[in-house]
Amino acid sequence: MFLSKLDSLNNALKLINDNQKLTDIEEISIAEAHKRVLAEDIISYHDSPPFDKSAMDGFALIGEDTFGASQSVPKNFKIIDAIGAGDFSDKTVGSNEAVVIATGAPIPDGANAVLMKEYTTSEGDNLTIFSQVTPGENVSPKSEDIEKGQKILDKNTFIRYQELGLIASAGYDKVKVFKKPMVKLIITGNELVEPTKNEIDKAKIINSNKYTIKSMIEDSGAVCEITHAGDTFDEVKSAMLQASKDYDVIITTGGTAISKGDVVLDVVDDIGEVLFHGVAIRPGKPIGAGVVGGKMVFTLSGQPVAAMSQFDIFTRKYLFEMQGRSFDFNIVKRVSKLKIPSQLGRTDFIRAFSDEDYAKHVLNRGSGIIRSMVEANSYIIIGENDEGYQKDDLVDVVFFNSLVW
Amino acid sequence: MFLSKLDSLNNALKLINDNQKLTDIEEISIAEAHKRVLAEDIISYHDSPPFDKSAMDGFALIGEDTFGASQSVPKNFKIIDAIGAGDFSDKTVGSNEAVVIATGAPIPDGANAVLMKEYTTSEGDNLTIFSQVTPGENVSPKSEDIEKGQKILDKNTFIRYQELGLIASAGYDKVKVFKKPMVKLIITGNELVEPTKNEIDKAKIINSNKYTIKSMIEDSGAVCEITHAGDTFDEVKSAMLQASKDYDVIITTGGTAISKGDVVLDVVDDIGEVLFHGVAIRPGKPIGAGVVGGKMVFTLSGQPVAAMSQFDIFTRKYLFEMQGRSFDFNIVKRVSKLKIPSQLGRTDFIRAFSDEDYAKHVLNRGSGIIRSMVEANSYIIIGENDEGYQKDDLVDVVFFNSLVW
Repeated sequence: MFLSKLDSLNNALKLINDNQKLTDIEEISIAEAHKRVLAEDIISYHDSPPFDKSAMDGFALIGEDTFGASQSVPKNFKIIDAIGAGDFSDKTVGSNEAVVIATGAPIPDGANAVLMKEYTTSEGDNLTIFSQVTPGENVSPKSEDIEKGQKILDKNTFIRYQELGLIASAGYDKVKVFKKPMVKLIITGNELVEPTKNEIDKAKIINSNKYTIKSMIEDSGAVCEITHAGDTFDEVKSAMLQASKDYDVIITTGGTAISKGDVVLDVVDDIGEVLFHGVAIRPGKPIGAGVVGGKMVFTLSGQPVAAMSQFDIFTRKYLFEMQGRSFDFNIVKRVSKLKIPSQLGRTDFIRAFSDEDYAKHVLNRGSGIIRSMVEANSYIIIGENDEGYQKDDLVDVVFFNSLVW
Repeated sequence: MFLSKLDSLNNALKLINDNQKLTDIEEISIAEAHKRVLAEDIISYHDSPPFDKSAMDGFALIGEDTFGASQSVPKNFKIIDAIGAGDFSDKTVGSNEAVVIATGAPIPDGANAVLMKEYTTSEGDNLTIFSQVTPGENVSPKSEDIEKGQKILDKNTFIRYQELGLIASAGYDKVKVFKKPMVKLIITGNELVEPTKNEIDKAKIINSNKYTIKSMIEDSGAVCEITHAGDTFDEVKSAMLQASKDYDVIITTGGTAISKGDVVLDVVDDIGEVLFHGVAIRPGKPIGAGVVGGKMVFTLSGQPVAAMSQFDIFTRKYLFEMQGRSFDFNIVKRVSKLKIPSQLGRTDFIRAFSDEDYAKHVLNRGSGIIRSMVEANSYIIIGENDEGYQKDDLVDVVFFNSLVW
């Protein structure tokens, strides 16, 4: 009986971690690099900005020349040139001289500040100013954002849109990233049928795992393809052997066949190695993991909620870390609105709706009740050494939206 | 001078909201429906589960018959049939009879509980049990998740993976959703060049907005295509006219041309209506919005940080709500680690790194400093009626990861 000896959660996670692999590195266009993970340090090829840059439309001049100017004490300047964005001026700005300048254009030699247009009037090349400006004002100094040669991002950084902007500014049109893991999702279960509005044959059940687990795989930065296999040893073995050649990770759902133990784990045991089967958690106790052809296999339950929780607890971290992105539950403390019973020796992942202050667990939580995941936005985690919590106790909470890629 | 009269933030947001549109509805396969927004209520075509279902591998029997059984007081049963997943039994279970049953299979008539295999031994059709089981135990009752005819999800619900599973279980293979907005991003700026490792011509600057703003648009559920336009009125007008015919929303970056005011806003004024130009916020004051050919136009700054903040403050909500998904900043309270000066009459969006307890603003925060967005994970928001905060004051914080689609 596999399940009669349950692994502890920490031991199961350690066994997975011992078999953690990284995907290969590929070089891609930065146009494709949003939400990928850097596989190289980013060293800037340029200063950014590459010159002292005007931050405003206005007049480049010598800040000190404007001192004392005000609405009642205007001062007069001579306009000697004009610079649009993308242009530059060869002139040098002298005392009481000014150059018309656009946002983004280089400050001409001699000038050290930009006075905004709205504090001036002009006629021909005569400029009258009604305000003073401090030297340096409205100027973005050369290399204030990035210095040429500087390391600006580390390998293993997740590329959000702002990191992407920084990479572009540093001069990279391509970037090295970790490849997306290719995941084969093998759906087993003779009882499963596709969603239909028509009446369903007796003993058949609509397959929802296919849609949820595929979405979770994609939400972990990976690519998912699906195969269906019947509940026989030979069908599952054939699907798993093929997948172990063509894919980086194999995930199965369901596959418990009558009087033969668990077909899926039997196959893993036959063509590879079972790392564990059965972990002291709820929901999701029958989770298994193994290695086939050097590829990690996660055997998730057929019960929808158990499968989702198992994915969150075991699979998500593996897929993140395959891509060089570290992953740990971001645990926060909340006040429990209800009493929560639990059992020593078992880690509970209790679906809950939490806000900034409170966590309230969803009451109807059989492992087949998808609605319980729909009503939830978080897990309350109760460790194996806890016997549960009273109302108003502080509990550990992980928000679902802290788990996504 | 447009900018000399700044709109208040609330007024600007109201002007956008007054012009909020919804995209059309389309029906798509549920295989494509993850992270879309429902444009119909979901009414279940089925009970789920469709029958009383076994939640374990074991023996279906009459729970009351097992009362008193234990390791030292075994009880004997007769096995009368076996049911695999996807199968069912025609037999009726009588007193001290049992049916071998797989997880997911229908409980046969007469039985009301499932005893797990590990608490039994069997030889031929003789079963010995060593534990009792309560009636109803290890049985998922018919329709415990969903009842046929029940409304299980409302129109305008965002489809996470769990909602997708529920929709599948309800019998939908297709689902009505709001179309993704088609967004044209028009990049203006004669000074801009593509990322390159080679030396850049004097007065030119690498275009990073193209990458960041496109990623932000996609992170708002929309589809983005990019056009480049020079800084002239005619080029921008031609690009915007075309875009107003073919796209749902137009977003521009940059486009301030010398001594002519803002070319982009001039074009909006010429071929449509300017809603506002200049809002009392920092960063991002020069933001504008308008309507051209019935399509909303957002004119973002050329300065990278200003453009990102403007998108977060004005554009993101519009794109979300176009798809029927409500959007509001999820504001939480944190303790400021530093003193933050601000100015009455202006709303500040200060880049900060925040955790569960504290917010610490990024010190170097010119509107061109992309690194300040990279170092940040949140904004501290200081309202127009606040003059700033002291160290240890509670401040309003919005996390970046609460903004994404």
